Formats: sequence, C-alpha cells, structure tokens
Amino acid sequence: MSDTVKALFFDVFGTVVDWRNSVSAEIEALGAARGFEVDGEAFAQAWRARYQPSMAVIRSGERPYTRLDVLHRENLVDVLAEFEIDSLDEAAIDALNLAWHRLNPWPDCPPGLKRLKTKYILATMSNGNVSLMVNLAKSADLPWDAILGSEISRSYKPDPKTYLAGVEILDLAPEQCMMVAAHNYDLLAAQELGLKTAFVARPTEYGPGQIKDLKAEFEFDVVTDSMIGLADKLGCK
Amino acid sequence: MSDTVKALFFDVFGTVVDWRNSVSAEIEALGAARGFEVDGEAFAQAWRARYQPSMAVIRSGERPYTRLDVLHRENLVDVLAEFEIDSLDEAAIDALNLAWHRLNPWPDCPPGLKRLKTKYILATMSNGNVSLMVNLAKSADLPWDAILGSEISRSYKPDPKTYLAGVEILDLAPEQCMMVAAHNYDLLAAQELGLKTAFVARPTEYGPGQIKDLKAEFEFDVVTDSMIGLADKLGCK
Repeated sequence: MSDTVKALFFDVFGTVVDWRNSVSAEIEALGAARGFEVDGEAFAQAWRARYQPSMAVIRSGERPYTRLDVLHRENLVDVLAEFEIDSLDEAAIDALNLAWHRLNPWPDCPPGLKRLKTKYILATMSNGNVSLMVNLAKSADLPWDAILGSEISRSYKPDPKTYLAGVEILDLAPEQCMMVAAHNYDLLAAQELGLKTAFVARPTEYGPGQIKDLKAEFEFDVVTDSMIGLADKLGCK
Repeated sequence: MSDTVKALFFDVFGTVVDWRNSVSAEIEALGAARGFEVDGEAFAQAWRARYQPSMAVIRSGERPYTRLDVLHRENLVDVLAEFEIDSLDEAAIDALNLAWHRLNPWPDCPPGLKRLKTKYILATMSNGNVSLMVNLAKSADLPWDAILGSEISRSYKPDPKTYLAGVEILDLAPEQCMMVAAHNYDLLAAQELGLKTAFVARPTEYGPGQIKDLKAEFEFDVVTDSMIGLADKLGCK
C-alpha cells in the first residue's frame, strides 16, 4: 500500500493543529488586554460549534461558495454577542478572526510531517481557505507541498467534489491518495471515493470530555495516534 | 517596499529552473539508451518553441483551458516527428514528457528561496500545471508555500486573470505581491495590474546566443541576477 500511495491529504483543524487551546488562549489574552472576562475554553467551543452549520448551507446549495474566513467572521460576531463582549471594534474583530491563521500544531506534526515529506506529496485537504492554510503553515511550521481542499474545489468536505478535485489536480488515481484525519466522517467520505485512509486519534481535540472520534469506527488502512506513528507505519525514516 | 510586500510570485521555467540543459540531457540520454542520434540542444529549443503558440489558442478562447502537461505532450509528438525519432512507444513518450517535472534549478535558487521564505510567502505563478509544479518542487528542492498560477486560474499568463486569481486567493492587494521573472513581458503584465516586480536576469536561458530578456527593459522595482541577489535586495538574511 505504501508504494501505491503517492500523496497524503491532510485534514488540518483538529488533526494537525490544536484549535481549542489556541483559540482559547487568544481570546483570554485579548480579554486581559481589553479588560473583559471570558471563559476561553467555552468561547472556543462555541465558535467551533457554528462551523458545521455555516458550511451546511453551502453544501446544500442554498448559499454560493464562501471562503471559511468569511464564515468564521460571521460566526465570531454571533459568539461575541452570545458572550456579551461588546468592546471590540471592526478592526479588533478582524484581528481576532485571524486566530485561525496562527493555531498551534500538535507537537508531533512538524517532525512527523518532515519525515512523511521525504516519501510523499503532502497536501492540505481542509475546509480552510488558501490564505488561512498558507499563513498557518508558516506560523506552525507545516511543510506542505500543495494547498488543496475547499477553496480549490469551491466546495466543503465531505462533499465528494472536495476530495476528487484534489485527486484530479495532482493527476493521480484515488487509490494513490491517502486521506489523513482524526475524524471518522471525513475518512469515510474519502474511502467511499476510493482513497486510502489513515486515522490519527486526537482524543483531546474537544477537551477531556470528548465523546466522539475517540477511535477509528471503520476499517481504515492505517490507525495511529500521531504523525510520528504515521511516518513509522508508512516506512518514512 | 519590502515591508508592503507579503508574497513573491515566481515565474518558474527559465527563472527558477534551467529547462534547456535539463531537457537536452534527458533526450540525449534516451537516445543513447534507445540507439538514436539526437542534438539535445536543438530538440529542447524546438520543443520550447511550440510552447507559446500552444497557449495562444487558449488565451484567445479558441480552445478551452487544457493543462500544460497535455500541451507539452502534443508538442512532443510533433517534435519527435520533426526530428524523425520514431522508435518511442506511447509509454516512452509519456515518460519523456515528464522531463518537465524534473528540471534542474539554477544553483542559486534552493539557497536563495530558503532565505526569501523566512520573510515572504513564496508562490509559483507559472503556466505549469499543479502536478508539474509539485513534482518539480520535490525534485529541485524548491520550498514553495503555495502553487498558484495557470491551473488555479484556468488561464495562461500574460492573461491578467492568472495573476489576479493568485492575488485574490491569498487575500492580498496587488501591491502586496511581487512578480519575480526573467522575462520582461511577464513582469510588464504584472506591473500593469499593480503588482511589484523583480527582474532576475537569466542571460543563458536560451543558450549563449540568447538575444532577448538579456536585461530589464522597463522600470521594475528590483533588478538582479539571482535569487541570492533578490534575497539581499529584499533584506532576507
């Protein structure tokens, strides 16, 4: 299998970067600087909870493709209202919205990805837009060969178009691409299209109380718990 | 200027990689292995000479967007006929066509680009398709942050769409992007759209008899003769 596969496609939020602790720290630091109290953990969870609903209307065709930065910004305005934070002007909200461009990686990612890069094409297959992915890669030291995914296909995972546009643009067959993710639904969608799959467990993505995606729930090609583990299993020195 | 600019857009063929010597060496090696005589230099020039005409019909709208690998393959069949090389089967022609995926970089590029990467987003702004650019980056050690250009915009430079799609997808303004190229026409097109420009002289791209693009013919923001020189001028350590 590891000889057939030419490219690894990575989910990013949760799989490669720790959005929860990063966003939590950003809003708490902002609160300390601007003089408002906020439960960073709850704020991060509330912001992320609006993520799937905001993409659902695009997947269904009710709304044309809109990049994730714009959806994040709309959702942020709602969350600020919910948390009764009203002291931020437009520029401060814009700046806070870019918290998603500077999330911290899980510590195994920079070294694990560098090993994987010696043997495979590494591409993002995220719902994040291109500028978000590029800025995140620079801040979190993620050595991608290509930014694919949502904005390239103008669709949102798990729409088959998102994965297939990536396969097509690399001029590969589905079985030459392996989707790497911490989420069962994402891998299942890729598997149904003929891609290989690797589950990387991130059991604290949503915090100590996480109840889903604690383990692989289907027959995936690789099951591991870090990018170091993935590099080991794929024979990357 | 170097503080306004956030992203550098690179022309690749001729500016970053030496297509002439690389293609010449590939066809000569193939000839030695398969028992045919060929003037590699003349073959490389003849193949490249078909490049602009094959894109012109796409720019004009006569032909829908077709990726460069396909144009290269069509042109290769013509050049093989012109050189009376008839001993290659379809698979061998396919393999030879991928010569463009493994061109050698000008020696200043890997070290110069690594310095530029510490301060700027580095994106390809080439007429090459995404898989060509990704494979070339891996073989020539080119540390791109993003593959933009022709296939992302489904157009060919100097169509304004090609440059502007790159500016837009990075969520930047034209003046925050600098086009880097060894060709006056490419920089002029970018300059007319408001991008900054850097001319990198490659006076032997077409061999010792090269007669055009020997020097900058317009007022570009930076004029230099290597990526090391560009890094120096842009203050990248």
